[in-house]
Amino acid sequence: MSVLTIEPGSAPAGEEPPDTGERHRLTAVTGLAALSLDAMASVAYGPEAIVLVLAAAGAHGLGFTLPVTLAIAGLLAVLVASYRQVIAAFPDGGGSYAVARTHLGARTSLVAAASLVLDYVLNVAVAVTAGVAALTSAFPALYDDRLWLCLGVLVLITAVNLRGIVESARVFIVPTAVFVGSVLVLIAVGLFRSGPLSTVTADGHASALAGNATTVGALLLLKAFASGCAALTGVEAIANAVRSFRVPRVKRAQRAEVALGAVLGVMLIGLSVLIGRFHLQPVDGVTVLAQLADASLGHNWAFYVIQFATTTLLALSANTSFGGLPVLLKLLARDNYLPHVFALKADRQVHRHGVLALALVSAALLVFSGGDTNTLVPLFAIGVFVGFTVAQVGMVRHWRLERGPRWRGKTLLNGFGAGLTGVATVVVTLEKFQEGAWLIVVMLPLLVVAFVAVHRAYDRIGERLGLGRVPEPPHRQRSLVIVPVSTLSRLTSEALTAAASLGDEVRAVTVCHPDAEDRAALHALERSWADWDPGVRLVRLPCERRSLGRPIAAYVQEVTAAEPDTRVTVLIPEAEPDRLWQRLLQNQRGAVVAHAVRRETDAVICRLRFRVR
Amino acid sequence: MSVLTIEPGSAPAGEEPPDTGERHRLTAVTGLAALSLDAMASVAYGPEAIVLVLAAAGAHGLGFTLPVTLAIAGLLAVLVASYRQVIAAFPDGGGSYAVARTHLGARTSLVAAASLVLDYVLNVAVAVTAGVAALTSAFPALYDDRLWLCLGVLVLITAVNLRGIVESARVFIVPTAVFVGSVLVLIAVGLFRSGPLSTVTADGHASALAGNATTVGALLLLKAFASGCAALTGVEAIANAVRSFRVPRVKRAQRAEVALGAVLGVMLIGLSVLIGRFHLQPVDGVTVLAQLADASLGHNWAFYVIQFATTTLLALSANTSFGGLPVLLKLLARDNYLPHVFALKADRQVHRHGVLALALVSAALLVFSGGDTNTLVPLFAIGVFVGFTVAQVGMVRHWRLERGPRWRGKTLLNGFGAGLTGVATVVVTLEKFQEGAWLIVVMLPLLVVAFVAVHRAYDRIGERLGLGRVPEPPHRQRSLVIVPVSTLSRLTSEALTAAASLGDEVRAVTVCHPDAEDRAALHALERSWADWDPGVRLVRLPCERRSLGRPIAAYVQEVTAAEPDTRVTVLIPEAEPDRLWQRLLQNQRGAVVAHAVRRETDAVICRLRFRVR
Repeated sequence: MSVLTIEPGSAPAGEEPPDTGERHRLTAVTGLAALSLDAMASVAYGPEAIVLVLAAAGAHGLGFTLPVTLAIAGLLAVLVASYRQVIAAFPDGGGSYAVARTHLGARTSLVAAASLVLDYVLNVAVAVTAGVAALTSAFPALYDDRLWLCLGVLVLITAVNLRGIVESARVFIVPTAVFVGSVLVLIAVGLFRSGPLSTVTADGHASALAGNATTVGALLLLKAFASGCAALTGVEAIANAVRSFRVPRVKRAQRAEVALGAVLGVMLIGLSVLIGRFHLQPVDGVTVLAQLADASLGHNWAFYVIQFATTTLLALSANTSFGGLPVLLKLLARDNYLPHVFALKADRQVHRHGVLALALVSAALLVFSGGDTNTLVPLFAIGVFVGFTVAQVGMVRHWRLERGPRWRGKTLLNGFGAGLTGVATVVVTLEKFQEGAWLIVVMLPLLVVAFVAVHRAYDRIGERLGLGRVPEPPHRQRSLVIVPVSTLSRLTSEALTAAASLGDEVRAVTVCHPDAEDRAALHALERSWADWDPGVRLVRLPCERRSLGRPIAAYVQEVTAAEPDTRVTVLIPEAEPDRLWQRLLQNQRGAVVAHAVRRETDAVICRLRFRVR
Repeated sequence: MSVLTIEPGSAPAGEEPPDTGERHRLTAVTGLAALSLDAMASVAYGPEAIVLVLAAAGAHGLGFTLPVTLAIAGLLAVLVASYRQVIAAFPDGGGSYAVARTHLGARTSLVAAASLVLDYVLNVAVAVTAGVAALTSAFPALYDDRLWLCLGVLVLITAVNLRGIVESARVFIVPTAVFVGSVLVLIAVGLFRSGPLSTVTADGHASALAGNATTVGALLLLKAFASGCAALTGVEAIANAVRSFRVPRVKRAQRAEVALGAVLGVMLIGLSVLIGRFHLQPVDGVTVLAQLADASLGHNWAFYVIQFATTTLLALSANTSFGGLPVLLKLLARDNYLPHVFALKADRQVHRHGVLALALVSAALLVFSGGDTNTLVPLFAIGVFVGFTVAQVGMVRHWRLERGPRWRGKTLLNGFGAGLTGVATVVVTLEKFQEGAWLIVVMLPLLVVAFVAVHRAYDRIGERLGLGRVPEPPHRQRSLVIVPVSTLSRLTSEALTAAASLGDEVRAVTVCHPDAEDRAALHALERSWADWDPGVRLVRLPCERRSLGRPIAAYVQEVTAAEPDTRVTVLIPEAEPDRLWQRLLQNQRGAVVAHAVRRETDAVICRLRFRVR
């Protein structure tokens, strides 16, 4: 994941950082550490996804873990080679949205964008559930409360992001290194054992293994392959952040990409060898990684370190969505595919909507899945693979247009990758359709349709506003300012002063209702108005109904119709107490009048706030 | 309850009705029918409250139902006599708030007002739960879902009130008459039976009777008396609506009050005689009234008619709070004890806040009680009795000041009533303190404190605004209008035209951020501005941070400081699409700028909305 996250210069939550100098940029090694977080984190749920599918065919099925993992490692190699090419072709940072925009047209790029949006959302849910699964593997007593734990972690991440965090890729280096280091130690130690050191956790729970079914069909293997491909999420991150590397950027980024592929491949293959060696079976409430840590290192402090590192890494991985999605939404808004509010350069408030929306949708997904990672992983894989496929098809087009040196080989490589990921997309969608994949199948086109509708509406609005044409020159008009009045105070005096400054003519208006109390108030007002004699006419607006805004709006309409060349402005004075709770005491007459005038007339509405200190 | 509800001329939900002629006014008979709804409805839960308390002392305790009811009927007689006097003394409609304001000072009247507010809220909860209890007595299968039924009924009533209903006392005549008629038939038929005709429902459920405890202490009887007094709620309604009667108003209202007392007394005593005769015991899930209907009329259509009439009447009784509370809040707001927004004569929107707030608090009470009437009745009784006590103490003061004919007798009567209701208040508060009465003990003073705080704040604000003094005369100032601009369009032209009409000088301002994209946009804007040449200066406001509103607010502060005699106005142009969903496409720049300028400066904010059709 983290398609657009880590790139310095696009920190979306806080302020724009100043341009960073070359020496702050990433080398191949620091780049690998800083940008591989999401890819490494997927090791926590990828192998488990394979084991869960194969377990349907019993112990015999589980024997296919290694072959399936090798196939996935093969796809990983193709993806890495393919993304090396993307890095060279799009040194400014591509992402499937950018590649598709350049080579496949607007519509296809919207498909890529929609799949990215869905991925960001699903990434939060998957990472949170997987992180909590690592935690409950260490503390089984928490297992029954896993949904609440998930929601708690989500609230925590949301709160941190609402406060605004200064993002830096460097924050991710330490936890990523700790996690990768411990998994590699786990693998190395495990390879020297002939049997599991400890299977306490595995014995403690009932195994979910489905009898002794022995038919391992091609479909099952394909399904295991498709599910396991979730382990490949995140390999595109480096290709999106080429600009963060030191010169020569492309070379360094390519090296980091290859290193990422190598480390990820070693981890996946190593873990699957251990799964076979220790005859591991899926166990409710204990993740495969936790079982492997148990078997390889024993149920001691090392086990808890691995579980804790996994939880931390997955929480950080969920956090990247909160940084990345707003950047993507901003790009889409700038291209008129989303409301411009997402691209608004303003203070933090605006950004909060995005964070809260992401949190709400993620929470819904958590509840939908009951806090179970394996329900969400297939949905996640679909979106990721749609993105992979679009990017590679775009690259095929790229090489065929460019026809540089060895373009046939490059085309073949990307075409092969596109074919593989495309097939994987179709397989996982069909296999998991009833278990939730329909959600993606429905949402993806809906998002695309929404993007298109927004784009059309902006085109039409821009046309009406005459965007891009030289507008008519402004001209001065006679100005009439109308001031609603109900009592006489310093506020009234302030309002009439402002109105006199703004208008060629000022009229005060007051709405009066037929009941006795109101009539008395009107007479009192008229008498004191005459005493005060501010040089402004006080117009009486009788109204039979219990209404305040409508009579004023009607008067504005009347005046506008009678004097079409006059610009009518309604100036609404309001007293605003300094203390926050006292704002509740404001009578809201101003808001009511503004609402009615706004809805029913074209008059300019001025609001004068008089601070009561 | 319904202290201020039924009075024509104060319908709060819809429009003010035109003054009704004399022939539309109430006679003693129609007045009784129209205004007794709440009092009659309390028959549905009053006797049950007595039985529940006495059941703690077993069958022996239940034998005291009739004596306790007779004591309550005695109190009813005192209250009726006392309210006859209130009618004569306050022919404009009193209510405990009005009586206390006149005779006991502002503070005590606030206690009365707070107790009324609590009563209105509790009335909703009590009436809804009692109505649902009548329904589930008829259809026991619904009993387990009673909380959901209660919330459903509440949603229904709230929805009806949000839409706005034209209230008329006459609507209540038919259901009240049907209910009273059937209860009287029930009593009459029951008196001719020697034993229960049918006890199907009573046998079906486990009795909640607590063994054979036989000690019936004075405390238990006092508690039963206090609980049963809930049956007296509503006897004050006629005294509040004297103006609705035909001349001679006072005489007719007094007659209606006496008739109300007589009918209510007959019903209460009749029901308690039947309770003794049929050896009735409290049964989970079947109300006492339903058991009596069963025993007297049999489990046939007549039973269902009574249950249905009870449910309807109680739903209408809950509804009266939605009409009455806003009127009370309006009175309090007019006296500066609540935010003026409650007294705002405006279109329906404002009223909605009150309806929704009442619904939310009532929903909380329903959940708190689990949909059980008997948890809520004591709380309800406290507030009602505080009101009774305050009103009667006020009347004592009234007679002592007036010293008209027979003033000593009248004083004695009201003093006796005040003593009785005061004791009842104390007893029920102490007895039920831990079961929820603490809520009232906490809320009542809190409300009074809030009223006082609001009143003080209004005094201070009025002082600062110079209310009641002749303000300084208005004077014309030089006017500078600042227009934030980001692109060139018809909207810009419109805005500059408006600004030129309003200001002696116009300046356009544009905020620019240091990133490349923004710089390009700025250059494009400056070039086309020069081409357009609108005769207005375009001021560049550079800003390092991701901010839009603050630089403009800072510029306004700067200009205001430099030219203190100039009135600075910020005119914010906004394009507003006609279709509602397209409003989502607005970029919110206007809102952000308005927010910042409003928070940080005293400038007048003008918003010009340009409709895109």
